[in-house]
Amino acid sequence: MNPKVSIIMGSTSDLPIMQEAAKLLEEFEIPFEIHALSAHRTPDLVADFARSAYDRGVRVIIAGAGGAAHLPGVVAAMTACPVIGVPIKSSNSIDGWDSMLSILQMPSGIPVATVALDGARNAGILAVEMLATGDPALYQQMLNFKASLASKVTKANESLKEVKFRMKTN
Amino acid sequence: MNPKVSIIMGSTSDLPIMQEAAKLLEEFEIPFEIHALSAHRTPDLVADFARSAYDRGVRVIIAGAGGAAHLPGVVAAMTACPVIGVPIKSSNSIDGWDSMLSILQMPSGIPVATVALDGARNAGILAVEMLATGDPALYQQMLNFKASLASKVTKANESLKEVKFRMKTN
Amino acid sequence: MNPKVSIIMGSTSDLPIMQEAAKLLEEFEIPFEIHALSAHRTPDLVADFARSAYDRGVRVIIAGAGGAAHLPGVVAAMTACPVIGVPIKSSNSIDGWDSMLSILQMPSGIPVATVALDGARNAGILAVEMLATGDPALYQQMLNFKASLASKVTKANESLKEVKFRMKTN
Amino acid sequence: MNPKVSIIMGSTSDLPIMQEAAKLLEEFEIPFEIHALSAHRTPDLVADFARSAYDRGVRVIIAGAGGAAHLPGVVAAMTACPVIGVPIKSSNSIDGWDSMLSILQMPSGIPVATVALDGARNAGILAVEMLATGDPALYQQMLNFKASLASKVTKANESLKEVKFRMKTN
Amino acid sequence: MNPKVSIIMGSTSDLPIMQEAAKLLEEFEIPFEIHALSAHRTPDLVADFARSAYDRGVRVIIAGAGGAAHLPGVVAAMTACPVIGVPIKSSNSIDGWDSMLSILQMPSGIPVATVALDGARNAGILAVEMLATGDPALYQQMLNFKASLASKVTKANESLKEVKFRMKTN
Amino acid sequence: MNPKVSIIMGSTSDLPIMQEAAKLLEEFEIPFEIHALSAHRTPDLVADFARSAYDRGVRVIIAGAGGAAHLPGVVAAMTACPVIGVPIKSSNSIDGWDSMLSILQMPSGIPVATVALDGARNAGILAVEMLATGDPALYQQMLNFKASLASKVTKANESLKEVKFRMKTN
Amino acid sequence: MNPKVSIIMGSTSDLPIMQEAAKLLEEFEIPFEIHALSAHRTPDLVADFARSAYDRGVRVIIAGAGGAAHLPGVVAAMTACPVIGVPIKSSNSIDGWDSMLSILQMPSGIPVATVALDGARNAGILAVEMLATGDPALYQQMLNFKASLASKVTKANESLKEVKFRMKTN
Amino acid sequence: MNPKVSIIMGSTSDLPIMQEAAKLLEEFEIPFEIHALSAHRTPDLVADFARSAYDRGVRVIIAGAGGAAHLPGVVAAMTACPVIGVPIKSSNSIDGWDSMLSILQMPSGIPVATVALDGARNAGILAVEMLATGDPALYQQMLNFKASLASKVTKANESLKEVKFRMKTN
Repeated sequence: MNPKVSIIMGSTSDLPIMQEAAKLLEEFEIPFEIHALSAHRTPDLVADFARSAYDRGVRVIIAGAGGAAHLPGVVAAMTACPVIGVPIKSSNSIDGWDSMLSILQMPSGIPVATVALDGARNAGILAVEMLATGDPALYQQMLNFKASLASKVTKANESLKEVKFRMKTN
Repeated sequence: MNPKVSIIMGSTSDLPIMQEAAKLLEEFEIPFEIHALSAHRTPDLVADFARSAYDRGVRVIIAGAGGAAHLPGVVAAMTACPVIGVPIKSSNSIDGWDSMLSILQMPSGIPVATVALDGARNAGILAVEMLATGDPALYQQMLNFKASLASKVTKANESLKEVKFRMKTN
Repeated sequence: MNPKVSIIMGSTSDLPIMQEAAKLLEEFEIPFEIHALSAHRTPDLVADFARSAYDRGVRVIIAGAGGAAHLPGVVAAMTACPVIGVPIKSSNSIDGWDSMLSILQMPSGIPVATVALDGARNAGILAVEMLATGDPALYQQMLNFKASLASKVTKANESLKEVKFRMKTN
Repeated sequence: MNPKVSIIMGSTSDLPIMQEAAKLLEEFEIPFEIHALSAHRTPDLVADFARSAYDRGVRVIIAGAGGAAHLPGVVAAMTACPVIGVPIKSSNSIDGWDSMLSILQMPSGIPVATVALDGARNAGILAVEMLATGDPALYQQMLNFKASLASKVTKANESLKEVKFRMKTN
Repeated sequence: MNPKVSIIMGSTSDLPIMQEAAKLLEEFEIPFEIHALSAHRTPDLVADFARSAYDRGVRVIIAGAGGAAHLPGVVAAMTACPVIGVPIKSSNSIDGWDSMLSILQMPSGIPVATVALDGARNAGILAVEMLATGDPALYQQMLNFKASLASKVTKANESLKEVKFRMKTN
Repeated sequence: MNPKVSIIMGSTSDLPIMQEAAKLLEEFEIPFEIHALSAHRTPDLVADFARSAYDRGVRVIIAGAGGAAHLPGVVAAMTACPVIGVPIKSSNSIDGWDSMLSILQMPSGIPVATVALDGARNAGILAVEMLATGDPALYQQMLNFKASLASKVTKANESLKEVKFRMKTN
Repeated sequence: MNPKVSIIMGSTSDLPIMQEAAKLLEEFEIPFEIHALSAHRTPDLVADFARSAYDRGVRVIIAGAGGAAHLPGVVAAMTACPVIGVPIKSSNSIDGWDSMLSILQMPSGIPVATVALDGARNAGILAVEMLATGDPALYQQMLNFKASLASKVTKANESLKEVKFRMKTN
Repeated sequence: MNPKVSIIMGSTSDLPIMQEAAKLLEEFEIPFEIHALSAHRTPDLVADFARSAYDRGVRVIIAGAGGAAHLPGVVAAMTACPVIGVPIKSSNSIDGWDSMLSILQMPSGIPVATVALDGARNAGILAVEMLATGDPALYQQMLNFKASLASKVTKANESLKEVKFRMKTN
């Protein structure tokens, strides 16, 4: 089955972060692919990848990178698919500020849809939301997913009552 | 005709920035609407807006805000449409850092697709790219649009040759 | 007994920080309640909470949140009680800068009384000071509390004399 | 008539910012006083001021300062009234970061309720909200005030429709 | 005559900054070329440029860019010539921090020799120093150039004596 | 023997940092005192301390503090002795930025001589240099001390030769 | 008459800032000298200056510089006189952060007494305070100077009463 | 054999970072030397080193330093060889910002080729690229080196396929 979303990352060391995007797509049963591609070490592979993505069935690209994070922007320059950028707080990063600004501050004409630092799960959700603009059933699934977030918080709230009781009786 | 994209902003003072998104959508002939809605001053209107958007035909929401910019995140909490956030460097902002971080750093479950500071035109492009995931003709239009960016730079490059000549003969 | 102060937080993972506010209120025997409520995951509960708070007896709200921390501002938009915001340096935060700016930089009309990063105990003190504006006995208690801070430092100072002696005889 | 709120600032050059707090208090007919007092240039006056404030009828103190802004914290150390701090982006400030951090990051025991950079109007609103914790009629006034914020945005929204029309016909 | 240094920039709007590099090279009579090339708008031209540069005689590349500044890094990925990066504080930049970090924080394997914000003249000097590693006469020229910097400061110092005199007699 | 230097700190938790100043003064046999004094918790003690310091023989004051670090500035406001400020990167600090800016950015008229974050040893050296402005023998001691710094680096350099040898033979 | 204080700056363009130090010294009738010396353009002059300063009568050095501001630290490495550093927010600076950190964050052994950004007047006051550690009459003068700061604020306070009156009658 | 590259560092504690530059040079069989030299503790050694470097055969200097990192700039002021600066995130640094800005923001006339924080390996690569401007065989070696970076990423990509398979079957 053709992948609809492509998850790429600058280095396999980013996998522990980026696999959260993959897990989210599995929850929605969206077919996807994962690749390690470096804007700086494999520029030709990146170009081949970006230009062939749509014809291989890909409709959304999720790209994670750290430091001077050029991968999302370089891919966005070579495709008309929306590119979601995940800034990664890697060990060689200045607390993530470099990753964040290198992905977010793209020039006019070449946007990258940037999510929070290490926010790969949110990148997955955003990819589903994008696909759902043309797929009403998927939209309904996403509505249900968002509604389910509320119940977790509601349960958590109940556990707080005990906490308070514990404090009072100390 | 039903709007497919909704452009909202926290205050009409953000219009000079946000209308760049509208202009881009007009270039692609995508029907859109514009609203001023404040997460803090009109919370009920925001809730009504967000919850009715999909049924009114809206598929993508573009939300711009400055300072402690809660509008994009608050809307994203109440819809399953993708929300694009435009951080605005307004006069009461700390050089735009507050707007940027308030929009970008959303918690797990509620992504906002953030673009560059004052990047409303890029927000418009991203909205078209999202709609194009389910619309091959629109995808082709966007491919052409991106290709046209190259020709502008190529022309600019030619003008540089004269610049160099001028320097040499000084 | 009706709560006079309401302590809310975006997630139960914020409890280790936020319970310092609760402990302080217990020292002053101010009745309080604790809730986990998310501006993004349970927006309707937040609205219900904020709008009913005053009528349930609540006079001050303390709201803690991390990352793009919208909870304090969203609540402040729906109540005329003073809202104290506690920025939390959670694991997904950029060293706390995002939490701090998202809470502090509220637009004109909707203030949030922001305290230091992870400063929940100070939020508790501030809540008591607010209640004391209409309660002379409570004001007196707070005066005594602040005076007691001095004696701790004075004792600490005495322990320093030994430190110095130790250094001299090394 | 005794002042209920005291507005102080480090220097009269802060008056154009700080008078916004005064104007807000006038709207609510709250009696107030204004003083220029410097934590560094007039430490004794500051101590006298802080210690006599409550007995003169003052219930809330609003303190604005720029640069290494010690005035709000120094006053908070000498009173049990709530102190609202207004960081000011003065000419000798590093884009306001110094003012903001010097006021916000107070140690445990001595909170300052900090508002946005140059946010004197919000400081005034917060002062009224604090007084309203013990004054139901004032609470009702504040509820009305907050409701009136919505109508301004609603009107602004209507003006946007014309804007959109203008764009379309260009 | 073949260019030995190539000066490239993301947009002709960067020319007022980048021409300082050209002027410096003219002082040393180093042949150079200038191009506008965008990593995002003309990726193929950038690849052609980078890969053919050495064979056209280019030995050092100076690349200026603002915002999410990918041009220097993308070129460095496709050549073995040293690439000097000039971060530009363009209007769409966050005070230059984005340009600086996007150029400086390159991953292992692909360095960019970064100079100060808007430091195009220094980029020119650095290019000459690099060429001089294999050209003793050019090294001697650069030694003389650096010595001449001292005389300007020495003259400036003399003018200060008059300043002081003026102050004294006021 | 009367102390010539007074070392003060906001809390005894700052002692592990601040004792480096004391150790340096012992090396120079300068008599000193150490106190814990809080600008916020013991304002009266601070005032008494600052105003009596000179008459007790104190000529230089070293003050360390973290977070919204007001102690150095508050003391400087009440003495004509030079005050050296040591910003401390305490646990409740935003990576030390708050401490640094609260101490450094003092208004005109009330300087604090600020040293590096956690730089208590340098504060000690600076105190000796200040005393040496009126004491030629002490100046000579300090000259010798600074010369001795060179020999440590020179020895370290010799150890590097072995490092290099080790690398070569691997 | 021999200068007791030496004011140096990296470039004569820093004079409008640095002359505030000179004016302050004139108020106290302290003899001084002014020089433009660059750590980078005239390293030998800097070395000669620093090593001969004490013998020419200089007891305190005030050094101002912008950008990567090395002058204060380089001079401090070659003298045992206290060096006061003035970070300057020059046009090529990143809002002054580079100047501030380059001067403040000196390594152990070589302190620079740093004052606020553009704080040359405070550098002058600090120099006088340092000289006063060995000169009781000068100490008394400085005490009077600091006392005079209070009267300016007191007068300013009186002018505020009229301001308030004006507001009330509007 | 004469060293062609000189690696210097402010302190031997920087060796774990800086030896990565040495290892890279060994891979290319470029003769090099390593020294510990402090701009502040051994200014005369630094001057001797910088001025004699070229005549000893050195063509490129790599200088690493942390905090207020003056070594690269001070050396660059005394040589016409290109100087590569490595900002080091040492323990006394503010997350590396001080090191980065002190090295990068050099004034006009005295460039330092700055690489990423702790980027010593990239400094080594850059040194080889500089030497290769005058040495075609070395240029070819560097081209091969950069090509080899691609194969590592390609292998990593293959390992990702298994990762995906593992996820799917969970």
